[in-house]
Amino acid sequence: MARVISLLGKGGTGRSTLTLAMARTEARRGKRVLIVNLEPTSTIGLLLDVPLGGDPQEVEPNLQALHFSTTALIERNWKKLRAAEEEYSRIVLFREVYEQELGVLPGLDQFLAMSALRDWDLSGKYDFIFFDGGSGLDQLRMFAVPEQLGWYVRRFGDALGRSPVGQILAPFFEPITRSLLNISVDTDSMRQTTGRFSDVLNEGRAVMQDPQRLLLYLVATDDPLSVAAARRLWGGSQLLGLTVGGAIVRGDADWQGNFDPLPVRKIAHAPLGDLPAQLEGLADANPTVPAPLVIDEAVRTVRIFLPGLTKKQVELSQYGPELTVRAVDQRRNFTLPASFRTLRASGAKFADGYLNVTFA
Amino acid sequence: MARVISLLGKGGTGRSTLTLAMARTEARRGKRVLIVNLEPTSTIGLLLDVPLGGDPQEVEPNLQALHFSTTALIERNWKKLRAAEEEYSRIVLFREVYEQELGVLPGLDQFLAMSALRDWDLSGKYDFIFFDGGSGLDQLRMFAVPEQLGWYVRRFGDALGRSPVGQILAPFFEPITRSLLNISVDTDSMRQTTGRFSDVLNEGRAVMQDPQRLLLYLVATDDPLSVAAARRLWGGSQLLGLTVGGAIVRGDADWQGNFDPLPVRKIAHAPLGDLPAQLEGLADANPTVPAPLVIDEAVRTVRIFLPGLTKKQVELSQYGPELTVRAVDQRRNFTLPASFRTLRASGAKFADGYLNVTFA
Repeated sequence: MARVISLLGKGGTGRSTLTLAMARTEARRGKRVLIVNLEPTSTIGLLLDVPLGGDPQEVEPNLQALHFSTTALIERNWKKLRAAEEEYSRIVLFREVYEQELGVLPGLDQFLAMSALRDWDLSGKYDFIFFDGGSGLDQLRMFAVPEQLGWYVRRFGDALGRSPVGQILAPFFEPITRSLLNISVDTDSMRQTTGRFSDVLNEGRAVMQDPQRLLLYLVATDDPLSVAAARRLWGGSQLLGLTVGGAIVRGDADWQGNFDPLPVRKIAHAPLGDLPAQLEGLADANPTVPAPLVIDEAVRTVRIFLPGLTKKQVELSQYGPELTVRAVDQRRNFTLPASFRTLRASGAKFADGYLNVTFA
Repeated sequence: MARVISLLGKGGTGRSTLTLAMARTEARRGKRVLIVNLEPTSTIGLLLDVPLGGDPQEVEPNLQALHFSTTALIERNWKKLRAAEEEYSRIVLFREVYEQELGVLPGLDQFLAMSALRDWDLSGKYDFIFFDGGSGLDQLRMFAVPEQLGWYVRRFGDALGRSPVGQILAPFFEPITRSLLNISVDTDSMRQTTGRFSDVLNEGRAVMQDPQRLLLYLVATDDPLSVAAARRLWGGSQLLGLTVGGAIVRGDADWQGNFDPLPVRKIAHAPLGDLPAQLEGLADANPTVPAPLVIDEAVRTVRIFLPGLTKKQVELSQYGPELTVRAVDQRRNFTLPASFRTLRASGAKFADGYLNVTFA
């Protein structure tokens, strides 16, 4: 089991440099570390002065790195799909198209990176995986895949299973699910296939929402705009149930008040070689951070930790057993406890970074 | 018809600030301008000191701005889908799910932004649309959607039309295509639906590859890493057939040699208010840039302009009438002229930024 570490912040705050320095800190004390670089503009390869390929390569003792290659992963997965199609041979869609032809559509980077993270984690080869992703938005979208996709599968799986469309598609989905997720499904039933797929997504969600498995840090500089951006990303992460363990501030400004109650690590501008010492203890920290969600049945209140946001930036809606919260251009559905299901959200206010939603 | 302008560069090079300054330059000389801000960490809203909503609002004379809201667009499109389902009523998948519940999966931002760009363009309300997107990778993925998705639709449309799966799905796709793309399709035939969809994507591709309609600029600073990143994004853009019209360099370094033969606009670090004067003439420039693709049948050569890349970074493959080029974790399929179809690529070398592929 690996812990994934990822830094969130506005472009130009030095995320790649800090990621590399944190990775070195861990590798030098004997931890097995992998750095995954997603962006073509990321500087980790340039900082290491090693051309990175799509597979992990050792760049320093205990430290492996790769430049994530979506095209290579599309090829690998396409080969699996074609093989599954050959074997089942009820459908002829994939086999006439070769893996070397396939272009990249938006979203594939994040879906495939998520799936690759799962494989690297299951490999047991790493203690830490440092993920240097793209912009804040796409990184959050990626870590939210198990949660969000899980919701779609739950919500549509049943309807699809009942519909004639679903019955036709079932033998089509089954080999796809089986070959891409490395899971076994014994039946052609759409319901069982989506059920097994749901299980995988639920496991993924539990991993993403466990701070021992995914820990995010905010990065800011002296620039107040970088603080505003970090606070937005903090709120967005919390809405998705991801754990932000602290903030790293490069520079002299005292931004502690902007990140309360998170620990803030202030570090001086320094050459890359001097950074690891300043970052010690962050990757394996067990930060005490506010619980993302507190349900208090006694006072009929749901409390959601949404720091960095104001009430105007948050929108609530309720459908049956679900409370939906929208903020930072994201949406999360919370399943309410049974005792709340006949109640309606009657008020919402912010206190201490928590949005308190009361029901009546 | 609007011209879309977008800046590509490493995080922290000041893309948002420059975007705003360029937009002001145009608005102040009477052009009708829209700024679209995609990233939660983008600073345009903060620089304008106006809270931006999901719909265009006038922030200065002739200048409208919005913060792209994927969740809001999902809602709008979902309503259309549900209405189409109500009307057709052969399928019951959408109507039980409310638009306010839908989460955001990776890629939706870019697909919806692309579709919204089309709507703003068709509205005829703007001369210029400044698009301040996310990281370089996702922005390129987005502008490449018509090209890449068009390939998938062409390649799979026929196979799907012939297969029993396609025959079942046809009445399902038709209202989706019709309601989401605002196009009319007269029939339930999968082939006609995908054909009409292909037409829309071909139009989109023509727009994206026309420098009068989409013009990209690279942004770099004194930091050599920002130059390396800009060069990668340049090569990636060219591979996709997008036009980079020049480079904007903030600072004192002389990087002209890195961007030959593009015009380089050097600008001094200055407060936002002083920037517009330095950026005059860029948004409505008609830069003479190398042709992205030159096919010379006489010497059996295909020349693809791929600046910033070396031969090692480019991979070629050929299947029947298609030459596939892979670089910067992207892939593009070029349809070869009829006279090349019995030939095989026999050699490739770089000269003057062009990859020259000879056939024998």
